[in-house]
Parts: sequence; structure tokens; C-alpha cells
Amino acid sequence: MGEPAGIGGEIALKAWRRRGEGIPAFAIIDDPARLEALARTLGLDVPVRAIAAASDAASVFATALPVLAQRLRAPVVPGRPSAATAPSVIAAIERAARLALAGEAAAIVTNPIQKKPLYDAGFAHPGHTEFLGALAELEAPPAMMLAAEELRVVPVTIHLPLAEVPKALSTAEIVRIGMIAAAALGRDFGIARPRLAVAGLNPHAGEAGALGTEDAAIVAPAVAQLRAAGIDATGPLAADTMFHAAARARYDAALCMYHDQALIPIKTLAFDRAVNVTLGLPFIRTSPDHGTALDIAGKGVASPDSLVAALKLAAAMAAHRRTANAPRA
Amino acid sequence: MGEPAGIGGEIALKAWRRRGEGIPAFAIIDDPARLEALARTLGLDVPVRAIAAASDAASVFATALPVLAQRLRAPVVPGRPSAATAPSVIAAIERAARLALAGEAAAIVTNPIQKKPLYDAGFAHPGHTEFLGALAELEAPPAMMLAAEELRVVPVTIHLPLAEVPKALSTAEIVRIGMIAAAALGRDFGIARPRLAVAGLNPHAGEAGALGTEDAAIVAPAVAQLRAAGIDATGPLAADTMFHAAARARYDAALCMYHDQALIPIKTLAFDRAVNVTLGLPFIRTSPDHGTALDIAGKGVASPDSLVAALKLAAAMAAHRRTANAPRA
Repeated sequence: MGEPAGIGGEIALKAWRRRGEGIPAFAIIDDPARLEALARTLGLDVPVRAIAAASDAASVFATALPVLAQRLRAPVVPGRPSAATAPSVIAAIERAARLALAGEAAAIVTNPIQKKPLYDAGFAHPGHTEFLGALAELEAPPAMMLAAEELRVVPVTIHLPLAEVPKALSTAEIVRIGMIAAAALGRDFGIARPRLAVAGLNPHAGEAGALGTEDAAIVAPAVAQLRAAGIDATGPLAADTMFHAAARARYDAALCMYHDQALIPIKTLAFDRAVNVTLGLPFIRTSPDHGTALDIAGKGVASPDSLVAALKLAAAMAAHRRTANAPRA
Repeated sequence: MGEPAGIGGEIALKAWRRRGEGIPAFAIIDDPARLEALARTLGLDVPVRAIAAASDAASVFATALPVLAQRLRAPVVPGRPSAATAPSVIAAIERAARLALAGEAAAIVTNPIQKKPLYDAGFAHPGHTEFLGALAELEAPPAMMLAAEELRVVPVTIHLPLAEVPKALSTAEIVRIGMIAAAALGRDFGIARPRLAVAGLNPHAGEAGALGTEDAAIVAPAVAQLRAAGIDATGPLAADTMFHAAARARYDAALCMYHDQALIPIKTLAFDRAVNVTLGLPFIRTSPDHGTALDIAGKGVASPDSLVAALKLAAAMAAHRRTANAPRA
């Protein structure tokens, strides 16, 4: 569902209309009545059908959008998130996670949420990802990947002020995130021997100590530990020369030290085609790489492209995971 | 000349061979005998002709590479820079600057230098740019722009460890670099009303204080001061969403807070086509965006593409400056 006052419902309806384009059968956890009303308002010809179990989605999908009903306790006003609908938003996330944990869903795709009304309703997690980590009873936080055809990036630190990045970085954390990334590339992306390119923190990866000590003291030992663990990691590399086409051909994912080092190159190359993937959960989770877009909610102009890409990537990852888990002949 | 043991001579010879492609008439300050020998060794058909004054270059250029003779005191071994040739390297830079200051050259293009042998020979400046600033008797350091067809970026801080960037940033310095950039865009790039996009320091430009204080405390006041000075500056902007094609159409140069924030996007988009431009000097100076490439020096495989781009951009800038300086009718 995501935030019902945002564009989530609209892009789900539009994604279903593009089901002929290789989109996997999916069910949406949402309120069937409000989706029907939304389709009518937007003039989208989408039959909505409530299903009793996730396993019914595949047979319904060809002719209607399958909905696992999650009633809303208050009417939705596009662009105006409300704490009154927040419990249903939270319940939808929890239900998706439980379906995935039980193996009843091959993957979950989360529409964007609005944090403020969730906090107002008592939501105690910083965001979606942390909530999913708690539902999965993870001991360490999951990792974030942004994936597009041109590039995959995995930031080691994410939502931190830049000044806090150098002291927040540790060899252990770079290794931990690198291991999660390599495992996911192998299992969920079908890459037999994943190659990680590890970015340096400083300009020119520290230029042999002339531009900062962290690359030699923190990043290089992490690369050595990853290699000792059998992972094809290289670095620390100068971040500015890592992302042109010839350089990208040399690795499967770039492990970056901070938010903008990872997000600048991928959004420069694939602004509205990148998919957010959470790595390190026991199930597959992707999400479109945009927010709730409250400013255009209910207007019929939202693009489902990123949701479509998230659905397709989730399906591709699930197929790889099935192959990886299949017993060998 | 640049470092004679690097690829500078080779790419100059090759650039002259492409003179039909809109490359302006240029003279190289170098040793004519060593250039002749290099052309012979590499099998490049380039007649080399010593000229007495820069003003002779234009008439010679169509039939030979014009050379302002700067003798080397020792033989050059490709790949092996030597302090013995350093005085000639330094003298060549100084001579180019004096020609430009005197108006005998419309612009200078500097081939890459190797710093270590210059330091060993007593060179007291951190690099090329600082030396040119001293020759021009500047009171404040010049600014650096990387320019390509897709994007122009101007970093406010450059060769600093990342941890030192937040405390090195100041409103005054952002304003100073922004003023230099806007003036150069107007005079040397022919942009009547230059638009500057100013990047935030922190992820999401600080997200209203949730991700660092510098964007509100340091960057935003700089944007306000630039606007008060009549410059069309916007920001602080989230750096990750500034560099896709639609975003780039909204500005003429991006003012970035640190090295990789500027260099990641331009090298992602235009790895070997970016030209380094020094802004704030009294003359035009460009340089190819690569180093001395000692590993391939003397092998005939170096690409002159970046030097060719630097020569063309210098000529275009000189033409704009002539127009800007011409008396109005």
C-alpha cells in the first residue's frame, strides 16, 4: 500500500495495466473500495478483485488487480497524509513481511511511505527498512542497494551528515556490508563470482596519504579482509574514475562510503530507472526509488516506471533465488 | 611542454595532425630537436618548425607544428622524469603565462606536469595552477572548472581529505568561487545570464537540519548573497538529483562543495572528454583532464582527445572574450 494519500495506489493501478510487459503477478495489500474509487476517478480501466490468500493472485492477475484487503479507518484525501490511516499502512507492511517470511510471497515491493503520520500514530522505527529488519528479527541492520541496468551501488553509511561519515566508517562495517552485497549478488542476481569495487573515502582514494588517512587505515584493510574471505573485491579506488562505462564493466557492484558517493553516479546515469533493494533480509524486498509525491497525488500524472522496474527486479531476484536454492542434480 | 618524459609531446604532435578538425593555431613551447626525434620515433609525419615569436604561429600552423624553442638541458627518457629537465618545464610555463599576460597569446593550454622532479628542482608551488596564480600576481587562489558538453562543475574545495571539508567550507569562499564562476561563464562562455546550481554539502542538502547543519548555516546564506549580487544562483540542492539530464538543463554550472561531488558526475558522464579550466586568472588557461601517463609514454598509444578538447575550448573561450571586450556600436 504505502502511504494511501500519495501516488502508491495510482502507480499500482497503472503497473497492472502494463502487465503484458513482463511484470510478475502481484497482489496489492490495500483497501479494495478505495482502489476501485481511485481507478474510477482517474479514468483507469482496472478491475479490482479482493482475494482471500496470496496464492490466489496468480490466477486472478490476468483479468483483474488482485487485492489482499486491508481496510482503511478513514477516507483518504490525496496529498494529505493522516495519522488515522497510519495503522493500516503499518499493518500492510507487516502483513507483506509475514507473507514473505512464510514463503507465500516470493518477494515484497513496498510503495513509499510518509514517515510523519506514522510517527504520529506511534510507529517506533526510523523507516521502512528498519521495520522490516525488526519483523525479520535481524541482529544487524540490512544494507541498501540501488540497482539499474548501468550500475549497482551499495552505500556503507547512508543518512548521516557528511562530517560524521569519516568517524562512522569502520573496517568491520565495510566488510559486513561487502559480505551482504556479495552474498546477494550471488544468490539473487545470479552472478557466480561477484566483483565488488570498493570506493575510497577521500579524493583520489587518499593519494597515498596526502589526502587523508582513512583509505589506508580503514578501507584498504576491509578490502583485504573481503579478499581473504574469497570475495573478488578491489580498492580503495578513486571514486571519480569508477563510474564511467569502461570502469563499470569491471565490477558488479560499487561499495561506496557515503550517500552521495553512491547516489550521485546512479541518479546521474539512471535517474528514474533505479530500484531500491534491501539486502540482508531473509526475503526479497524492492521499492521504487521515489517518494510519496504528495504534490501530484490524485492527479493521474504519476509515472509507474520505477514501480514497474521494482516489480520486475523483484521477480528476477526471486527466480535467481529459486535456482540458487534448487537441489543440484 | 608539460613533463617531457610524459605523453605531452606525443599528444601535441597528434593534435597538430588533427588541425583540420577546428583546432586553433597553436605553438608549443618545447625543444624542437626532441619533438622532431619523437615524431620520427613514433612514425608521425609532423614537420616541426621553430618560430621566433608567438605571432608567427598562425602563418606556420597550416604546414608545420610551430615551436617556441625551450631547450632541454638533458636527454629525455620516456617514462622517467628527471630534475635535470625540470628548469625547462618551469620556464615553459612561465613563458606561456607571460605571452598570455602580454596579449601575444589568446590563451594557454598546459600539458600535464610531474610534480616530484619539479619539487626536487626547487619549484615552490603546490602545482601548475598556483604557479600561474603567482605569475599573474593574484591575491586569492583561482578556481577550477571541469567542462564538458554535458556538464560544467566548479568545486569550492578541491584537494582536501573529506573529513576537513565541512570545516573548510565558508559562506565567503562559496560566494567568492560562485562570483568567479559566474563572471567566467558570462565573459568566456558567452552566457548572458549564467545560472548556477549550488549543491548542498549533506545528503538531501541536509533535509531541513536532520542531516547536518552546514547547508542551512553556510551554503544557504552563500546562495542568498550570490542572488543579492545579481547572480541567478539556486540551492542548496540535493546533490544526488542535480546531475541527470533534465536537472542539468536548468543551470550552466554546478557549484560543488568538494572534489568528488563535482568530479564523480562529470567523469561519469564525460570521462575522457572533460577539460580542466582555470577560472579567475587574467588570461584563459585550459588543460587536458589527465596526467603525464608515464606508463604509456613513448609508446605511441596516447590519445590526444583531451588535449584537442582543451585546445578547442580555449579557442572558443578566447573568441567569447574578444566579443565581450569589443567596443559596443
